[in-house]
Amino acid sequence: MVSAIDLEARKKAAELMRKIFMNIVSEIEREGRPVLVLPKRTLSNTIYDYKNKLLLLGPETSKRSFMDVNEARKFMQTVLVASIIYDSLVNNEYPTIRDLYYRGKHSISYRSGGKEVHENTWEEQKESDGVIRDLEVYLNILREELLILSKEKGKVVGNLVIRSGDDVIDLSRMGHGAYSIEPTPDLIEFKDVDAEYILVVEKDAVFQQLHRYGFWKKHKAILITSAGQPDRATRRFLRRLSDEYNLPVYILADSDPYGFYIYSVFKIGSITLSYESERLATPRAKFIGVMMTDVFGDDIFREILRDKDSRSRLNSIVKGLDKLAKKKPYLSEAERRNYIIKAKQRDLERAVELVGYDIADACLNNTELKSKLKKKEGLTGYPWFQTPEWIRELCIFFRTLSKLEIEAMASKGLKFLADHYIPEKISSGDWID
Amino acid sequence: MVSAIDLEARKKAAELMRKIFMNIVSEIEREGRPVLVLPKRTLSNTIYDYKNKLLLLGPETSKRSFMDVNEARKFMQTVLVASIIYDSLVNNEYPTIRDLYYRGKHSISYRSGGKEVHENTWEEQKESDGVIRDLEVYLNILREELLILSKEKGKVVGNLVIRSGDDVIDLSRMGHGAYSIEPTPDLIEFKDVDAEYILVVEKDAVFQQLHRYGFWKKHKAILITSAGQPDRATRRFLRRLSDEYNLPVYILADSDPYGFYIYSVFKIGSITLSYESERLATPRAKFIGVMMTDVFGDDIFREILRDKDSRSRLNSIVKGLDKLAKKKPYLSEAERRNYIIKAKQRDLERAVELVGYDIADACLNNTELKSKLKKKEGLTGYPWFQTPEWIRELCIFFRTLSKLEIEAMASKGLKFLADHYIPEKISSGDWID
Repeated sequence: MVSAIDLEARKKAAELMRKIFMNIVSEIEREGRPVLVLPKRTLSNTIYDYKNKLLLLGPETSKRSFMDVNEARKFMQTVLVASIIYDSLVNNEYPTIRDLYYRGKHSISYRSGGKEVHENTWEEQKESDGVIRDLEVYLNILREELLILSKEKGKVVGNLVIRSGDDVIDLSRMGHGAYSIEPTPDLIEFKDVDAEYILVVEKDAVFQQLHRYGFWKKHKAILITSAGQPDRATRRFLRRLSDEYNLPVYILADSDPYGFYIYSVFKIGSITLSYESERLATPRAKFIGVMMTDVFGDDIFREILRDKDSRSRLNSIVKGLDKLAKKKPYLSEAERRNYIIKAKQRDLERAVELVGYDIADACLNNTELKSKLKKKEGLTGYPWFQTPEWIRELCIFFRTLSKLEIEAMASKGLKFLADHYIPEKISSGDWID
Repeated sequence: MVSAIDLEARKKAAELMRKIFMNIVSEIEREGRPVLVLPKRTLSNTIYDYKNKLLLLGPETSKRSFMDVNEARKFMQTVLVASIIYDSLVNNEYPTIRDLYYRGKHSISYRSGGKEVHENTWEEQKESDGVIRDLEVYLNILREELLILSKEKGKVVGNLVIRSGDDVIDLSRMGHGAYSIEPTPDLIEFKDVDAEYILVVEKDAVFQQLHRYGFWKKHKAILITSAGQPDRATRRFLRRLSDEYNLPVYILADSDPYGFYIYSVFKIGSITLSYESERLATPRAKFIGVMMTDVFGDDIFREILRDKDSRSRLNSIVKGLDKLAKKKPYLSEAERRNYIIKAKQRDLERAVELVGYDIADACLNNTELKSKLKKKEGLTGYPWFQTPEWIRELCIFFRTLSKLEIEAMASKGLKFLADHYIPEKISSGDWID
């Protein structure tokens, strides 16, 4: 009942695992000291490649020796997870990461100092998840290619024909519904695409509106939603589709630090999972909105730059702030009044994580919040947000302490959003790279 | 670019609104006192129909008079939302409930006692959402039929052909992906079904596993996931599909009070939105698992019944506890040890909401938790959970304070879950109605 594509993927993955782990087996048979050496997945070993706009793992490695009492537990966990995954591959199972946690969880009994000791293989899923990530790095393969499944939120519609499993599916023929992306997007074959760009919408409800309005037909776009924070499969799907057909990618998200972060995850990846970025991130992705400057224009930012102190502090971090093109808002004063939401403390904190403490402190003029933020001093932010365009966006956020949802743009009329705002932003190049 | 089906649905809905609201217009033109009379959506006006297993609105009504200073605000809100929805219908818009909140939000200025007063139409979405519900009841129509969209999590695969929008879609040809249900399921036409039952899986990840394993092909089932708490569209889709083809419906959820509650929402509806139940609930839905008795068997419950005090307290609520058929667990002692999760305080509280305080108090033997629960005294629970079968399940929960995820059953092997557990439970009738 399972697809031929899955059978082939299983065989390939099982062979790879077998080949790599045979080294460990030989070592054990030689009565040697089996050791696993793998790249470190730590922050200090994460490098941001400015040129290619990618997060990469650096050269540091860690070793797990079976014969070292400090490393034996990690060694055991790694080999245990590997063996469960291998068994699943050859037994036609489709585990999830939650499954792998359950499957591997048991008590190991041994004698130590004359006493019988019981130790669990792990206590929490966090431990088994970490080991699965180690294996992805060690084997240089995504867990999806090991037929490990997961829940999946991403949806797509558009002039796109794919082969998935044993079926050929025309994603322009989904009616009012949508195609829900499979958890193993590397097994998809893209057969035909007729589109000029990909529009990724953060919110499922806005995706539904644009879909229903016929946006993708009218504007020759592939429409994707991540339904919030993107999962791995949606990211990989986007990356592959945009690469294989050389399609521009535009991200439409809320105008708030969470929306900006969603763009960041699509484009660069998450800093704690940098090893995935090389295959899951889409460096060509651009943020088309909603921008703070779409809401407020840039008068507020020009005002901040007129303050000598703020200006010199910002200039010490990024050059080129004066050269930014003038921006006009899409919203009137009255619309702003009705649409804007007051930022919460956690929005503020997330914004500081994005651009760092210094920029926040230079732009904020609320003294109470300024003193609250003191505890974040030293936070340097993500390098890819330290561009003139992003600093302008975040500065306006810090000064106005406002946010705006995509829905507010849709409230001006779906026609406005679909036929004016999005196309104009794209055609005039009004995006942030 | 929009579908012919939508155009037709719009026309129908706009005509209905026009017809009903013309009464108000005439009243205003006669310079009379316009009044809206609508069924009360309160707990006290919610009736559980034991025979048909449905929540219904009772006979109580509330009126909103424009000329009454206490009712004028609500009257204004109702007419405002109605007019925005009507405008959206005739202007080919597809608002969401969030949109409607934004579209209607503005300040009304008037003079009172010589002073100019500004009052917002509403402050929070809660208010506009409430008014939308009022309109659903007033117009006797679901908001989806007014072309109000929303985010949508439900997915489906199986031998099922539907017409949605302008497309005919074969849901057995979705590859490894799935069909994502549209937000307006009343506009779907079911064209052909070849299945013996519908299996609804709470968790998307387990849905992915069963789908990939070919469960629905092998067992002639339609496979649906609600991806957590079901949304309205998934519930309406299930109701229509099962009704139109007379298909049995089985719910597979976690063995915990949240899982039990998901079954309850599918089957009966939510008590605060009882007006929806007549069209969104699926009274024929049965809970096949995971049951507490699948995990533990029923020894624990027999033990509780041997205690005279507990027995008489339980018997005073429900008869027939002794007549329950004996149950054997699907898990071994060792599996239980690895798979079971300790219940949290909020699980316990949710369980009390389901069956009421008395049953909880009769079954719990943890004195610390018993005293904590005291504050819930007086909670009577939902009548549809006060059956011998459910009381047994909940009693075992209260006694063991354990829960189990569907994933744990999948960890025993996907073959076990797909080819043994689910089919055996269905063929032996081991479900709770």
